[in-house]
Amino acid sequence: MISFNRLLRERIKRLNTNLCVGIDISPEGLGTATDDLKALKDHAKLVVDATRHVAVAYKPNLAFFERFGAAGFEWLAEITEYIGTETLVIGDAKRGDIGNTAVQYASSAFNYFKFDAITVNPYMGEDAIKPFTEYQDKGVFVLCRTSNPGALEIQNGGERPVYAAVADMVVRLNYADNLGLVVGATGTAEMKSIRDRAPGIPFLIPGIGAQGGDLESSMRIGNTGAVALVSISRSIIYAGNRTVKDIKEAAESFAVEMRNIGDEWRYN
Amino acid sequence: MISFNRLLRERIKRLNTNLCVGIDISPEGLGTATDDLKALKDHAKLVVDATRHVAVAYKPNLAFFERFGAAGFEWLAEITEYIGTETLVIGDAKRGDIGNTAVQYASSAFNYFKFDAITVNPYMGEDAIKPFTEYQDKGVFVLCRTSNPGALEIQNGGERPVYAAVADMVVRLNYADNLGLVVGATGTAEMKSIRDRAPGIPFLIPGIGAQGGDLESSMRIGNTGAVALVSISRSIIYAGNRTVKDIKEAAESFAVEMRNIGDEWRYN
Repeated sequence: MISFNRLLRERIKRLNTNLCVGIDISPEGLGTATDDLKALKDHAKLVVDATRHVAVAYKPNLAFFERFGAAGFEWLAEITEYIGTETLVIGDAKRGDIGNTAVQYASSAFNYFKFDAITVNPYMGEDAIKPFTEYQDKGVFVLCRTSNPGALEIQNGGERPVYAAVADMVVRLNYADNLGLVVGATGTAEMKSIRDRAPGIPFLIPGIGAQGGDLESSMRIGNTGAVALVSISRSIIYAGNRTVKDIKEAAESFAVEMRNIGDEWRYN
Repeated sequence: MISFNRLLRERIKRLNTNLCVGIDISPEGLGTATDDLKALKDHAKLVVDATRHVAVAYKPNLAFFERFGAAGFEWLAEITEYIGTETLVIGDAKRGDIGNTAVQYASSAFNYFKFDAITVNPYMGEDAIKPFTEYQDKGVFVLCRTSNPGALEIQNGGERPVYAAVADMVVRLNYADNLGLVVGATGTAEMKSIRDRAPGIPFLIPGIGAQGGDLESSMRIGNTGAVALVSISRSIIYAGNRTVKDIKEAAESFAVEMRNIGDEWRYN
């Protein structure tokens, strides 16, 4: 069995880019009626069709599906199947609960939806992580330092901030080479400190684009000694006039930018 | 409009107990076939029928529904409707994500499922809380110090542990009197320190029973200056031979125990 982190590395190498496309499409974003699920479904497929050739991974955010309840979950299962097995699917669920509850969430993610990886919230400690990592061929990206302004109040502060405790915990739990860290592009100093603590751990990096994070420095730090997967959502899924052509161009532009930056040191 | 926290207080007063019944029923727990959703649905209704007269709130844990994907979400909507409006429903979702994503989760919880309250994960800071609290008539219980052993590594430590930062944040955000804190019964010292920091904030207390937390000390601390809602799951939903009679007796026994403990200072 190939470990998830190795698979991720190989996929990044194969496409020679680090692009992860976030799928979080809302009626408000798309400008359609709030109950028009079909418009969202069609647009999600259009995004996948337009970006498949440059996307290492898709990252559907579960919130955007859950809003529609059972019908939304059906849509999530549909689009995951539509993506297929040649591109990784990371369920951006940020679940975090303990013991037997996490077992249920893991079953939902890996047995029901058949995601390749999931994002997990570390607030409840390793009890909230292990039931996911026990699926040793699946990937688990643990929130570490997120990209939003409010993150500071909780994740930073003190001699050993919480993001550092999380990084240390993830290094310890990574015996099957299947753990990653979510590290926002908006905190370069924190990213550097996390990279030092967790040298072999892949980063999933949000916060580029709308949130103002810098792609080049994120790639330089994140890609040193491990791989970085850079997630872009709104700048791709709502690009230009939301046509196949505009979305394709936006995705290719990001993919090529990452390729150019990454060429120097991607496989260090 | 009556605030959620006042409504909670009134419901506790009306039933003269602090019992919240957790609904997290699994095929493994019930001893039924893993694909037999009907058996779970029937048992959930049986639990509600048997405990309605002593339950201030039900707390369905979303993981146990999500495991079954879209069908599980349908079940969750069904059981929430079945509970009706005379008993509070707290969606134990532990969601935590930022900005526009949290908006979607809040819409799922309050518009789609019509929960009275939800549990939220504070790791991403106030950005992950506010989209929920903006529904001012709904309750938001924020994870503070959880009851599991692994909580220590992340939530404790340092001069101002993370659980303290969370308590302070919740006090600040409670302008509409609709925020609560999840404080596990297994950490009495932490619970006391949190009660001191957040004197007017209701506690939702897990960890009694299987996890070994002490009911009396939890009630004494939690009920001082605010209300405590004490969640019991396995000891009720799987009581005895899982008959209406056994489940009813178990729920009544907990409810009466809480009543007796609480009589002295519940309305201080």
